[in-house]
Amino acid sequence: MEMTVVTSQKRAGIGTLSRHESNMVLSSPLISGLPDGLQDELMQKGELKSYKRGGFLFMDEDPIDYVYYLMSGKAREYYITVDGSDCMRCLHAPGSYVSLHLVLSPEQLYSYSCEVLTGATFFVWRRSDLQGILEQEPNLGCKMLKVLSTYVEDSCRKICLCRKNQAVSRVAGYLLSLDNRNRVHFPCCLKRAANTKFANIKPLNFSANDVCLARETFSRALSLLQERNLIFIDQGDVNILDVEGLKKVSGGL
Amino acid sequence: MEMTVVTSQKRAGIGTLSRHESNMVLSSPLISGLPDGLQDELMQKGELKSYKRGGFLFMDEDPIDYVYYLMSGKAREYYITVDGSDCMRCLHAPGSYVSLHLVLSPEQLYSYSCEVLTGATFFVWRRSDLQGILEQEPNLGCKMLKVLSTYVEDSCRKICLCRKNQAVSRVAGYLLSLDNRNRVHFPCCLKRAANTKFANIKPLNFSANDVCLARETFSRALSLLQERNLIFIDQGDVNILDVEGLKKVSGGL
Repeated sequence: MEMTVVTSQKRAGIGTLSRHESNMVLSSPLISGLPDGLQDELMQKGELKSYKRGGFLFMDEDPIDYVYYLMSGKAREYYITVDGSDCMRCLHAPGSYVSLHLVLSPEQLYSYSCEVLTGATFFVWRRSDLQGILEQEPNLGCKMLKVLSTYVEDSCRKICLCRKNQAVSRVAGYLLSLDNRNRVHFPCCLKRAANTKFANIKPLNFSANDVCLARETFSRALSLLQERNLIFIDQGDVNILDVEGLKKVSGGL
Repeated sequence: MEMTVVTSQKRAGIGTLSRHESNMVLSSPLISGLPDGLQDELMQKGELKSYKRGGFLFMDEDPIDYVYYLMSGKAREYYITVDGSDCMRCLHAPGSYVSLHLVLSPEQLYSYSCEVLTGATFFVWRRSDLQGILEQEPNLGCKMLKVLSTYVEDSCRKICLCRKNQAVSRVAGYLLSLDNRNRVHFPCCLKRAANTKFANIKPLNFSANDVCLARETFSRALSLLQERNLIFIDQGDVNILDVEGLKKVSGGL
């Protein structure tokens, strides 16, 4: 197996993280609201890891040893198919957990790979550490249930979008889901004014693939939404100008 | 709100279920392997409910009050879109839990409806009862985590299928996933010989929609797979003749 490209790796603990990084992890869905002692334990057992674009968190058939909280950047999970091509199974944006659903899984090896698409920083725990805490702390189990619940709900909504015939409906619903995701995961970290709505769709080809569209079709739909003054595209970032208008185009999803 | 059509409803508890029904619930993913006392409590707090085709488990904006384990039949969840059409979000087959992911959700009302597609029987718990047990019993939380984990994994695989360009690849992968699902959920209840592989795809139009295909395209793909001697279709049931062949067509998914 190829080694992953780890550019910076430091033992975690609140002391070694910047104040901003600490706040991000402490306000993350898994940790916020837990008792102080449990929060401290989770902060101490985790560590910050940075990856360069093109690095791998893990590859097909690697042991399932870690759980990752994505703090910045993007990553994608994909299967290698028998003809050697790849098929994306999941796109991770900041606020996303990688492999959280596998903490208690009987599976020991991955059946897919996870590649970093842009320089990315993760807060990483050993799976065995989380398993140990879970046995002692029902609070953490309830938190995990809530996080996995949002994943089940999000995936139902996303596949529903993919069942829409019109590309422009899919893209409108997708942009709204990305904005909503920012709000849920980073309520206290949004740099923009609360009334500015925003969706990060870079890299474009993977966002297109995320809603089962070709890059060209996705781009055309974006242009159409901009022509209708529903969005404004600024260097690949999408500013949402008209939420109700987008909802109408997406059919209410 | 229209009342759901409930054709039979009896207080549960092992005594009032048939032996076969009791075994199905006891060997279900949420309950199997739990301590006897906890299993008894979950059996006693649940009840068996049957619905006719076209009945509703719940409708958009109903309160989220119950969790359902589907023992026979099929059901689908769907959103009503602004133009009055509906958009399927989830197809439930035997072994599936409806609303399990919402037990600890802050949401109080559904944003979608759940309709019974064929006569169906569910084992049903009050959401508040499950919440109460969860607070006391970390075992149940771990079981729920394992079930939700399979849902996250299954939805990643399904959307990956929907991203495949060729309908025949999607359908081949879909049939394998349905057979695999039977094996995971009903290891002790399969009526057929262990080496017979089988996928229930009725009603056809909803199975087609499940992998983002039109009914006609889904049917053509099935015919093609039958012509290649990979499956045999018998009154709407699919007998899988060649697992390796299907895997090859699906690209290994």
